[in-house]
Amino acid sequence: MNTFFNPSSIVVIGASNSPFNLGATICRSLNEFSPFSAPVYAVNRKGEDVYGCPGHTSVMDIPGHPDLAVIITPAKVVPGFVKQCGEKGIRHIVIESSGFSEGGEIGKILQQEIDEIKNAYGMRIMGPNCLGILNTENKFCCFYGVQKDNFDTFIQESGEISYIIQSGGIVVIVLESFMNDVVKAAKIVSIGNKSDIDESDMIEYFNTDEKTKVICMYMENIKDGRKFIEAARKVAKPILVFKVGRTSEGVRAAQSHTAGMANNDLIFENACKQAGVIRVNSISELHSLPKIFTHMPPLKGKRIAMFTNSGAFGGITADLLIQSGLEMAKLSLKTQERLSRTGQIFNVTNPIDLGPALSMQTFLEIFDILLSSDEVDGLLPVPSLWHPMVIEAIMELVKKCHQYGKPAAIYTPNAADKTIAYRSKYKVPLFESPEEAVRALAVSHRQYNYQVMKEELSGRVYYKTLPNRSDSAYEDYAEGV
Amino acid sequence: MNTFFNPSSIVVIGASNSPFNLGATICRSLNEFSPFSAPVYAVNRKGEDVYGCPGHTSVMDIPGHPDLAVIITPAKVVPGFVKQCGEKGIRHIVIESSGFSEGGEIGKILQQEIDEIKNAYGMRIMGPNCLGILNTENKFCCFYGVQKDNFDTFIQESGEISYIIQSGGIVVIVLESFMNDVVKAAKIVSIGNKSDIDESDMIEYFNTDEKTKVICMYMENIKDGRKFIEAARKVAKPILVFKVGRTSEGVRAAQSHTAGMANNDLIFENACKQAGVIRVNSISELHSLPKIFTHMPPLKGKRIAMFTNSGAFGGITADLLIQSGLEMAKLSLKTQERLSRTGQIFNVTNPIDLGPALSMQTFLEIFDILLSSDEVDGLLPVPSLWHPMVIEAIMELVKKCHQYGKPAAIYTPNAADKTIAYRSKYKVPLFESPEEAVRALAVSHRQYNYQVMKEELSGRVYYKTLPNRSDSAYEDYAEGV
Repeated sequence: MNTFFNPSSIVVIGASNSPFNLGATICRSLNEFSPFSAPVYAVNRKGEDVYGCPGHTSVMDIPGHPDLAVIITPAKVVPGFVKQCGEKGIRHIVIESSGFSEGGEIGKILQQEIDEIKNAYGMRIMGPNCLGILNTENKFCCFYGVQKDNFDTFIQESGEISYIIQSGGIVVIVLESFMNDVVKAAKIVSIGNKSDIDESDMIEYFNTDEKTKVICMYMENIKDGRKFIEAARKVAKPILVFKVGRTSEGVRAAQSHTAGMANNDLIFENACKQAGVIRVNSISELHSLPKIFTHMPPLKGKRIAMFTNSGAFGGITADLLIQSGLEMAKLSLKTQERLSRTGQIFNVTNPIDLGPALSMQTFLEIFDILLSSDEVDGLLPVPSLWHPMVIEAIMELVKKCHQYGKPAAIYTPNAADKTIAYRSKYKVPLFESPEEAVRALAVSHRQYNYQVMKEELSGRVYYKTLPNRSDSAYEDYAEGV
Repeated sequence: MNTFFNPSSIVVIGASNSPFNLGATICRSLNEFSPFSAPVYAVNRKGEDVYGCPGHTSVMDIPGHPDLAVIITPAKVVPGFVKQCGEKGIRHIVIESSGFSEGGEIGKILQQEIDEIKNAYGMRIMGPNCLGILNTENKFCCFYGVQKDNFDTFIQESGEISYIIQSGGIVVIVLESFMNDVVKAAKIVSIGNKSDIDESDMIEYFNTDEKTKVICMYMENIKDGRKFIEAARKVAKPILVFKVGRTSEGVRAAQSHTAGMANNDLIFENACKQAGVIRVNSISELHSLPKIFTHMPPLKGKRIAMFTNSGAFGGITADLLIQSGLEMAKLSLKTQERLSRTGQIFNVTNPIDLGPALSMQTFLEIFDILLSSDEVDGLLPVPSLWHPMVIEAIMELVKKCHQYGKPAAIYTPNAADKTIAYRSKYKVPLFESPEEAVRALAVSHRQYNYQVMKEELSGRVYYKTLPNRSDSAYEDYAEGV
């Protein structure tokens, strides 16, 4: 599987100099935009060079031995090229062309032909009907249609989140969203119709991939439920999945797109619980939530202390916390007295109302009091960005969270674009709404419980004696399959 | 009530030149930032002028006859100043100071004193514990703590949405959010503890206010349920309300903030249905949803046609539409054939997959086919902004929606900051997520049904014979109170 992300030589089949040719954009990315330096060849009718990639009319004529082929031709000629690859000894194929299982009877016949050739030569195939592969570490990218400025922005920084995405359109949104967030992608794979390699294969690969800390998935269907559950159960890393098809109308729409049988939603819901997989509620959660894993320690219990200098958010977040299954931490009189002594605080019971003005010193004291308290498992800070000092306080808070091993899901009650601007400038994990922040805490706790369960089931009982261990650890984890 | 928004002369009691004095920021807004030109006086211990506003030590010494007093002093001296206002003949008072019913026993006694004085002089009081009032039309603003650049931005354009908000912090978010949206505020009132004037009084006022087209509310409690229902029932304009206190923890938090008895949530839910009030699910919906009312015709039926050039969104939005209670429009073969003839479309059944490339002409033809079809009540367009032509097409779509009397809730599948930038630049009503767009359609249809019901109940049966009238019109409208 590693060859798909680290090929030593590549052939792009269907890349030519015709106007609007999509294969050419792949050659351009690989040979001009990217510092990735493996040899790249082009195959087209005229045998012409494309963006500096030597051109040939057949795969057989390529002088070297490419280990990865990217095919982006009309569907009807794909089987022939797959066969050429087999004869040439190429065992890793990415088919980006569409028009197979999702494209009616003719498409299905073409797919069958490809399957037979693949089996004969022992190949592995990604796709068809996919956008391709991105590895931000070595800057390998075989997505089609990428522009220079976009390429530079999204490939710039390598991160810790890897994506398994069944649709190219979703890849674009995720990449755009990372441009203004503190988390970045590690690897992205668009698996399309997944005639061969499926989501479960990718889960297994990303589980062994050192760079990947969180696995995020966009699915229109699950190919093999049992395989999915078995693959996911072995993974201690957080797995977040958004699946289309909660309604029969959604199922129908998804079918016409990537050709799978979208599965019964209740069965899928159950499979996620058995497999220790977190189901997310929107596409945006796939890129907004992972920062609670990459930038904060896990939430080991349910008791959250909330503080704000905008009183209304006490009530709003209390509602959200309770609805999400978390709890408002009950602060003892002793803790309340310690809070009182820090300065002029409006309300020292949880939710804590800081009042409008606070010094840096007061902020730091409050962080220490709450994070060190055994009455509190995590924080929900809602500080308004009314003064540059507040953002400095937030930066200190992030450090203290790691020091105490407890997370904070920080929401600054400002318009989304202002929050985004501060987040980009100061590299702090800010959430864009109170709903998103509370959801991140809930998801962090769910993952903690899943992890405890997975470790116990695998015989490595690390957490059994932890004092903060929540009783709900078993709640969402059904009995064996 | 009109005097609160259009005073002919104002006194700010508690404005002085002490550092951090909040009253001074009100004098500064009124006398320096705003082109609003009524005389403004200051009352403080030294009788000093503040930002050019003539200063006095007592209200009695003011030469003219102000018709509005803004009080922002420590709570304990407020009753005395209210009395001075009574003697001076001022009948409209905004009390921005905190420390009354929300501030323990002493606060409650002070509140009682004020109530007695108010009754004796026949005054009307806004507050206490509030941020003040904003009228974007005449640029009158008595919010405290406003900075020059913020003032200039939020007061610049006058809009059609009026807000009744029980918390200052929420006012700030709403104002910030409007800076990058196509809709703007008409009037904003922060009613705080609402010892006298309450949400129902404000609903009645905004109902008669010509400038106000939509009424939005943030509430921590409802003062008088019956009065609220009776006020709201008479209003044909959309009323959107966010209420804190869905859980007992939220209720407790809200109580410590603005001192009301947060009401049983189920009773409130029921009251909203009886009153024809739309309950929203987050603060952000208070500023994101109104554009479906200000920029689009109402959704008269439930049948939505969806089109996209990013296939994944067919399934995502189909799920969302069904879950929201709307329906996927069923397109007849005739309509599908008409769509086919416009160009190379991937899928002409609903959800329509446009495929990656389309011309302006094709876009316009598709808009006409769908909007003119009696199989379709409204549109959910999800066009990716891959080319400047797309935004031009969207601008044409907005015009066509008005021409055909059917709405479109447009979502462009890009990162939120990109969508916001396009929305600001081209002044088109774009939503920031598919969830928000679908919610806007659902809310538009709910309001249409409420309006039909209200008109029928009031004896003015305008809509009875409309062919598009949904059968669900009565669904959410309980029997009379």
